[in-house]
Amino acid sequence: MLINTEFKSPENFKLSGVTAGLKKSRLPDMALLYSTKPAKAAAVFTSNKFAAAPVLYCRNILSEDNAAIQAVIINSGNANACTGENGYANVVKTAEKTARLLNIRNDSVLVSSTGVIGEQLPFDKICKGVEKAVKELSETGGYAAAQAIMTTDTVPKTASVKVNIKGTDITISAIAKGAGMIAPDMKPHATLLVFAMTDADIDKDLLKTIFYDTINKSFNKITIDGDMSTNDTALILANGSCGNPTIRYSDTEECSIFSEALTDLMVFLAKETVKDGEGVTKFVTLNITNASSVSEAEKCAKAIANSLLCKTAWFGCDGNWGRIVMAIGMSGINFNPEKVDIYYDNIPVALDGTNAETDKYKIDEVLKKPEFSLNIDLKEGNSDYSLWTNDISYKYVAINAEYHT
Amino acid sequence: MLINTEFKSPENFKLSGVTAGLKKSRLPDMALLYSTKPAKAAAVFTSNKFAAAPVLYCRNILSEDNAAIQAVIINSGNANACTGENGYANVVKTAEKTARLLNIRNDSVLVSSTGVIGEQLPFDKICKGVEKAVKELSETGGYAAAQAIMTTDTVPKTASVKVNIKGTDITISAIAKGAGMIAPDMKPHATLLVFAMTDADIDKDLLKTIFYDTINKSFNKITIDGDMSTNDTALILANGSCGNPTIRYSDTEECSIFSEALTDLMVFLAKETVKDGEGVTKFVTLNITNASSVSEAEKCAKAIANSLLCKTAWFGCDGNWGRIVMAIGMSGINFNPEKVDIYYDNIPVALDGTNAETDKYKIDEVLKKPEFSLNIDLKEGNSDYSLWTNDISYKYVAINAEYHT
Repeated sequence: MLINTEFKSPENFKLSGVTAGLKKSRLPDMALLYSTKPAKAAAVFTSNKFAAAPVLYCRNILSEDNAAIQAVIINSGNANACTGENGYANVVKTAEKTARLLNIRNDSVLVSSTGVIGEQLPFDKICKGVEKAVKELSETGGYAAAQAIMTTDTVPKTASVKVNIKGTDITISAIAKGAGMIAPDMKPHATLLVFAMTDADIDKDLLKTIFYDTINKSFNKITIDGDMSTNDTALILANGSCGNPTIRYSDTEECSIFSEALTDLMVFLAKETVKDGEGVTKFVTLNITNASSVSEAEKCAKAIANSLLCKTAWFGCDGNWGRIVMAIGMSGINFNPEKVDIYYDNIPVALDGTNAETDKYKIDEVLKKPEFSLNIDLKEGNSDYSLWTNDISYKYVAINAEYHT
Repeated sequence: MLINTEFKSPENFKLSGVTAGLKKSRLPDMALLYSTKPAKAAAVFTSNKFAAAPVLYCRNILSEDNAAIQAVIINSGNANACTGENGYANVVKTAEKTARLLNIRNDSVLVSSTGVIGEQLPFDKICKGVEKAVKELSETGGYAAAQAIMTTDTVPKTASVKVNIKGTDITISAIAKGAGMIAPDMKPHATLLVFAMTDADIDKDLLKTIFYDTINKSFNKITIDGDMSTNDTALILANGSCGNPTIRYSDTEECSIFSEALTDLMVFLAKETVKDGEGVTKFVTLNITNASSVSEAEKCAKAIANSLLCKTAWFGCDGNWGRIVMAIGMSGINFNPEKVDIYYDNIPVALDGTNAETDKYKIDEVLKKPEFSLNIDLKEGNSDYSLWTNDISYKYVAINAEYHT
């Protein structure tokens, strides 16, 4: 499906991104998403037990059966995590302020934060930021909003897709941020931030089912550094403004079209997030095949993707498959070490658990590319799992040794 | 207990370290440990499913009830892992060659390897190495042996301790190597290499019990990079040459003295291994207290110790406790986020899950030290766990991006 990297506002959505002064750098740090019509919402949040105040707040709002969302106010520069009652009160006040200025219900506003953990939000600055953000709302504000949610990201991440459902054009668009502390495991009720918007009309429960499934196929399949944020949030708002006949059932053509478009959009953004991960020089697609179960395949993939030795080997353009077998062997899954095949792209490096004796220059050619796949055939069962990950470079260490509290 | 960093050979033990030419660097790469009397042995090996050929071989030999060990032949530069039947045959031949030259039984020789995975041993070089190693055996060969088992270690690691049991002086000495791929989980029947030797006379089953317990209190409590080698081996040989009355029962004073001395020796070497880990600039003692169970405390400690964000923060001398709570929160353990206290040494950084508002310079002072402790009180139960770990530096990345196959 054709993914447009430019952000196209779906009908009746407006966005803005402004500078409230939360970041020392004085770069944009507050974004507002606004739907002029109440929208159905589905969201997943971090499963980190130290979930941030805005995450707790959103879970609360969205637990209401008749939740109807019109705005999401987001700040970067401060995670509002580990901030106690005061931190939660600041979320409530931020939502109230936003609601008042937009003249909408308090409980139609969601709040999201990313940045340093353990510092109270400077509420005065937040207030002024909300005021500016409301004033600057526009249909072309997607890029500014994507800029304002960045932390160590180097590029704003936006994408749009348009599909036709029974004669009606519907648009799905999203902004995302990533960069570090990225190994999301977002559960239905999941500081990777992803905000998707659509003007499609769709049944709320069906939207939730499709969205959770989509996140499991996209953002839950990436790992940058194996660390899981206190603030991960993925959200979709559907305001039904494009006038399609409501998508009600999962076994319909219209549902397939919508669901496929959403998945393609989210997979695109998930991959972009990995490519823009902190200090990333290699984008690696990891395919585990023929495991005894999907969860075993996933365990195997994550052991490799989170292994420092594998990640530094990729950075060094080194097809050191010894580190790959080390990671598979410590993952705790079932397999026969004497059966495992390992390929970089289509070049075998190990066959039946031993050296494939491939010319080193052929392996090096693959490893020197900025993108390649690592394919592991366990020959144990018939379950597969894939994920997207990256190398660990000097720059990763630099960014994280120097990004201070 | 007074630990001597110089290697003192226990009675009737001889060692050597020689150059067989397995390493491109031409540094020493083969070591031999020899007891002129058959010794009782206890060992733990890697739980990595891709266990190397020498590990499989040693497990076999030691599974015999009446195993009596006289020699351990060790090479660095080649792990002999993922080498199939040919790799195993090379282990058998190495043991036979060593036995023949020492005029001892084949099954009294153990073999151990560390280095690159997936390459066949160059058996001609091994043969010549064995010949040299046999010739150079001496009571003063401990340092040379410790040098010969090094890979990316920067210093040879040796230690000795002497205790008096009922009038008889007994000596326990050990050599060790570590540096990378270090997160051992050595199970009874665990390429961290640790070889301990003692001239004490001790019952074989009691030796095993004490040794497993000691490893769990020392080498199984370190993690450098979270990766687990295919070759981890910890071994003790007790040849009974010092003439003490046999240590037979765990509830005796002599057993306590022996066990305490062995534990102190192994804890010392385990800490030295962390300090000499690849690119390490910080040695961190991680104490988790008041968890609901020991295994939960351990899970919590490992989540922190293996978090890239925590490790890079330490490298940056940054008391960013947000990363600590992130790691605790993703560990999956039970606790109340609003109760957790976090201290660096005795300086509180978070109390009851929120900012302790400690002056930043006080925290910085601790973090700038080469050694500090991170103390986490979960206030959930009454189980504790401690481990030793380190930061991740530019040098770690350099070593592992450049250490090629």
